[in-house]
Amino acid sequence: MSAPLRREAHASSPEALAADVEAGTRADEAVARYALGLGDDALVLAQRLGEWIANAPELEEDMALGNIGLDLLGHARSLLTYAGSAWGRTEDDLAYFRDEPEFRCRQIFELPIGDFGFTIARQLVVSAYFRGLYRQLTGSADPVLAAIASKAVKEVAYHLEHAEGWIRRLGLGTDESHRRMQAGLDAVWPHVEELFSPDPAAVPGVSADLDAVRAEWDGIVPAAIRGAGLRVPEAPAARGGGREGVHDESFGHLLAEMQVLARSHPGATW
Amino acid sequence: MSAPLRREAHASSPEALAADVEAGTRADEAVARYALGLGDDALVLAQRLGEWIANAPELEEDMALGNIGLDLLGHARSLLTYAGSAWGRTEDDLAYFRDEPEFRCRQIFELPIGDFGFTIARQLVVSAYFRGLYRQLTGSADPVLAAIASKAVKEVAYHLEHAEGWIRRLGLGTDESHRRMQAGLDAVWPHVEELFSPDPAAVPGVSADLDAVRAEWDGIVPAAIRGAGLRVPEAPAARGGGREGVHDESFGHLLAEMQVLARSHPGATW
Repeated sequence: MSAPLRREAHASSPEALAADVEAGTRADEAVARYALGLGDDALVLAQRLGEWIANAPELEEDMALGNIGLDLLGHARSLLTYAGSAWGRTEDDLAYFRDEPEFRCRQIFELPIGDFGFTIARQLVVSAYFRGLYRQLTGSADPVLAAIASKAVKEVAYHLEHAEGWIRRLGLGTDESHRRMQAGLDAVWPHVEELFSPDPAAVPGVSADLDAVRAEWDGIVPAAIRGAGLRVPEAPAARGGGREGVHDESFGHLLAEMQVLARSHPGATW
Repeated sequence: MSAPLRREAHASSPEALAADVEAGTRADEAVARYALGLGDDALVLAQRLGEWIANAPELEEDMALGNIGLDLLGHARSLLTYAGSAWGRTEDDLAYFRDEPEFRCRQIFELPIGDFGFTIARQLVVSAYFRGLYRQLTGSADPVLAAIASKAVKEVAYHLEHAEGWIRRLGLGTDESHRRMQAGLDAVWPHVEELFSPDPAAVPGVSADLDAVRAEWDGIVPAAIRGAGLRVPEAPAARGGGREGVHDESFGHLLAEMQVLARSHPGATW
């Protein structure tokens, strides 16, 4: 199924990439499997952040989380469009017509939004991960992945700043905000390990070096936590397995919500 | 409470306007009451569109409705920040700490999202209204309202194009999409009249001339409906009364969701 890459593929937007795919850009199948996992991570977290749109603690924050969610949705669309090009499937096919075990997201992205403290704790952890990941991928041997990453890395750098700002504000705020921020960190921590566990779909030269991503992450996240007067949690790692299709029990409900409209009108014009 | 307007107020973003208010920009109280109604309209519709983030029929559409919702949230924030300046209240005060009868949104903005056909029907109706409204307001005697409108009018022009595109696609699509699009129009139609009913907070010279807005609307919406092979509904007007604090029965639930986090930590740092 693999075909030569068009080197000029720019991936400046999901639509531009879709046009490239239309014109013949095809992902190598191994690369597609790798991109699929990354796309699922971004897609599922975008859905979770969308849940905040009606109930963040400030209108400005409503807007910030909404914008971050839409950035992630953009990354997901590009990655899924590219992955799907290997199999003749569209982004919508992949988002709406796969069943739970076919999704490849790591579990940290799936977890329910919890309270605002948990959401911010997860945002800190995953934004630092995304920044390292996409920075690595800008040097990928796969030019389309490199182009997607070049655009994404700027956006996730802002997401990281946003999370760092909130950690400080909540960690150094009231007793209540400190307590809930710490509780959020404690709850997300068992899922950190899975983020850096080997990706079964990794492709040498193409995929990110997770040890390097982890080293960058280790230089950022603990310092941000301590700088907010909070404690870096110690917790046994959760079971993980998202990249093998093992998901959190809440994931089925998220998928049902996300897929119901598309599935109730398969192939229709809406 | 009213104080001289700073003529240089630019309102290029809600944050810039908040800084102007911090520096002394104050809305005249009558203007504030007018801006409050417009702000509530945009705020409530933004919340409704946020509900689509997890379940539009296409990822691209998920993103489009999310972006439209965030545009409206931006308009709401500017309008509420400006309104609040007359009473020493912030946008968050006004959004999170008013009770149902104090909200001034017209009912069409509150109605539950229904199916995708209803959502698009409402988007067509209200986007054409917003475009006429904000175009009028660019000439308002109140310079801050005029500045807010100058920014908003470009965004709502895109929202209108988006809705016109979907009406065509659904109206001229399958039998099912045509049927549901018509049903959406039929359901929204009783609420059109209220949009153009006199605003009890209107301020001559400052507020928009709703007859002119209606004339522009009449030139756009029926043609868009007919051009999509659909029928312009005829329906008795619903009771209305949103500008007097009379709301749809679903509104209480929307408010509860929007306000719960801020109210559970009043005055706290989150």
